[in-house]
Amino acid sequence: MLGLMRLVVIGGSAAGMSAAARARRLDASLDIVVLERGAHVSWAACGLPYYLSGRVKTLEELIMHTPAYFERERNIRVRTGAEVVAIQPQRRQLALRGHEYLAYDKLVIATGGRPQRRLAGADAPGVFTLHSPEEARSIRDFIEQHRVRRAAVIGAGYIGVEVADALAERGLSVTLWEAGPDVLGRNDPELTRRLVEHLSRQGVEVRLNAPVKSIPLDISAELIILATGVMPNVELAAEAGIELGRTGAIRVNERMQTNLAGVFAAGDCAETFHLITGAPVYLPLGTTANKMGRVAGANAAGARERFQGVVGTMIVALRSLTVAVTGFSAAQARKQGFDAAAVRIVAQDRSQYLGSHPLEVELVADRRSGRLLGGAVIGQCGVAGRINVIASALTVNMPLEQFAQLDLAYAPPVAPVWDPLLVAAHELRKELS
Amino acid sequence: MLGLMRLVVIGGSAAGMSAAARARRLDASLDIVVLERGAHVSWAACGLPYYLSGRVKTLEELIMHTPAYFERERNIRVRTGAEVVAIQPQRRQLALRGHEYLAYDKLVIATGGRPQRRLAGADAPGVFTLHSPEEARSIRDFIEQHRVRRAAVIGAGYIGVEVADALAERGLSVTLWEAGPDVLGRNDPELTRRLVEHLSRQGVEVRLNAPVKSIPLDISAELIILATGVMPNVELAAEAGIELGRTGAIRVNERMQTNLAGVFAAGDCAETFHLITGAPVYLPLGTTANKMGRVAGANAAGARERFQGVVGTMIVALRSLTVAVTGFSAAQARKQGFDAAAVRIVAQDRSQYLGSHPLEVELVADRRSGRLLGGAVIGQCGVAGRINVIASALTVNMPLEQFAQLDLAYAPPVAPVWDPLLVAAHELRKELS
Repeated sequence: MLGLMRLVVIGGSAAGMSAAARARRLDASLDIVVLERGAHVSWAACGLPYYLSGRVKTLEELIMHTPAYFERERNIRVRTGAEVVAIQPQRRQLALRGHEYLAYDKLVIATGGRPQRRLAGADAPGVFTLHSPEEARSIRDFIEQHRVRRAAVIGAGYIGVEVADALAERGLSVTLWEAGPDVLGRNDPELTRRLVEHLSRQGVEVRLNAPVKSIPLDISAELIILATGVMPNVELAAEAGIELGRTGAIRVNERMQTNLAGVFAAGDCAETFHLITGAPVYLPLGTTANKMGRVAGANAAGARERFQGVVGTMIVALRSLTVAVTGFSAAQARKQGFDAAAVRIVAQDRSQYLGSHPLEVELVADRRSGRLLGGAVIGQCGVAGRINVIASALTVNMPLEQFAQLDLAYAPPVAPVWDPLLVAAHELRKELS
Repeated sequence: MLGLMRLVVIGGSAAGMSAAARARRLDASLDIVVLERGAHVSWAACGLPYYLSGRVKTLEELIMHTPAYFERERNIRVRTGAEVVAIQPQRRQLALRGHEYLAYDKLVIATGGRPQRRLAGADAPGVFTLHSPEEARSIRDFIEQHRVRRAAVIGAGYIGVEVADALAERGLSVTLWEAGPDVLGRNDPELTRRLVEHLSRQGVEVRLNAPVKSIPLDISAELIILATGVMPNVELAAEAGIELGRTGAIRVNERMQTNLAGVFAAGDCAETFHLITGAPVYLPLGTTANKMGRVAGANAAGARERFQGVVGTMIVALRSLTVAVTGFSAAQARKQGFDAAAVRIVAQDRSQYLGSHPLEVELVADRRSGRLLGGAVIGQCGVAGRINVIASALTVNMPLEQFAQLDLAYAPPVAPVWDPLLVAAHELRKELS
């Protein structure tokens, strides 16, 4: 084919821009167009809580690259304010608002997700979600204009916890409401206990088992942030006959292909799969979106790449406490049918004579196979690195016995001679034997 | 057998005490005796540089447990000042200095290593090695009594580098002499360049390709620390007919068994093997000694455990720079017969809008198999965790492609959305393709 092939990407955040950039790197001749409904592309969604807290001064700091940058440096056309109203796969074209049509040869759907707003009263003034730079700006403006002192955050997932901590850092009195018994949705009572304890010390009151169904009937606060989860933006895809999975997100294979030839999906609008169970899961996270986008872009450009899936790694970095999880908690593992054993230890994060901090490690393994199934790390320092070691082990179905002898780094200022990961692994081996 | 079985351990540092403690945990009835030539057991050898720098005030802080603790809490008899002069395997007994004999049923040899002192003039006053608490005390006393201002450290392995940094932190003017072209013995010019640059800024002058053969002819300084490597204490074992390996250390199998039935060896006196090549190596490190000791103790107590070997992880935490390595550098990998490709990238250790620091990552992979072979991480924060992820990958022969998609933790305060490890892996994939 001699005509210029055109790749169109719907959505200009993590997955979409990763797809476009990767396709460009593999094929210099491709005509690449990104259509973004909003005003910005390539902004750091995970940085928004730090804008609320004040640690990030301006929203501009969170914008990684402008449309002009992609145009100039990557030869990628970016159209902001461009809303796709229909995908017409038979004609291989998109209908845009304003009676415009855009033909494509390959399509990457990266329409992202949106916060759930299922509460009565959710549209009242003073009630916000935090999903875009515009919303973050509105919240900060609202706080300043109304001199807000008391805020409520609804939903104790990782965004809710980060936002509650950020507002408390700003000096607000914050209540965090959670419908279930659990923080971070891990079904992990000990992790919940630790986080509730920490948040209380930081001035965040946590109310568990407290479903909020209506605003302001159930709660009162000057400012309310809804953080009750993200749902995938799948309407465009579904209307075009693109299959959704059981999770409700767009079903893709490991090449990020949908059921329609030449149409890929990636990021918060799509499913991924869990490396431990092989099952489809919906885990909308920035890292995953970037990886999926990269694979979608490569395959849309004619390469053959696959995305290996996720193990569910997540980290929440609060003031003076970082909490990270990966794989399954004991309760989650049992729900998946594993005969799970778990231990939790508290050790020091480095040699005590150099001023160590306590570090908690939880490890979960399967009694039958002896393989690791998950873990959690809680502490002030060295949390990310340690959860990443567990995540790496989960990726390869590492047996606990092998994990317990990993050749981990030791120097008194950064780790004790028996790393807490190894201490936990030895304890868990006792449980399994 | 109804009589009490006796396990004797020769040597009371990391490997020896780990062996004794592990054997006790597995067998409450065993008679366990540890014979230590020196005055202390269970002290933190790796903490000695921090005593020199002054960050650790007293040597007592480095002593983890006293003989009385082991006696009381673990029912392990510890005899300090007890020197074994011969192992008599036919009689299953040890000859001790002072015409005493001690019978054993099982024996763990954990005689450790000692610093090489092959230079002419090495016995002159003001020339020290740093291997025991007593030596550390002598050095600090010498510095104070003679108001030392200029010091020389000979040997730029990890101990030499740490000691040079520690003495500079103390305010001394330090020169670090190295016979070869290389710091840390990795045959890695870029790593060497970075470390030399950093040490210079910290007031340590580094002289490479500068073999010192004689003191004080070749160099002059008020204080000289020899850090030219550690050699295994194998004389006792060799005289008893215990086989040594090609490395010169005691040959053991993965159960830490020597060629004599019932006789185990562990720690700095023994060989281990490299997980990447399967070949025996001599890598005397505290972590490895502890792990080997643990396995030796378990097997001496009748369990069946194996030590899986090492990948050569090492970390040096200097003031404001931490350097870590694992596996092979590109040059080392080529020497092992691999068709090695390598990349080195500089990325940010977290999201830039939260005040990131640069982090360097080097990765080495085999062109033929696509598997990872080694890596290095240099930076201020998050170095240990990242080298541990590489070490974990090396342990399972992880293909680079799998490594490049690891589900690593992301939160703006602790890591960027594309972790530097993944950025390096993607770069290296380009090299391999």
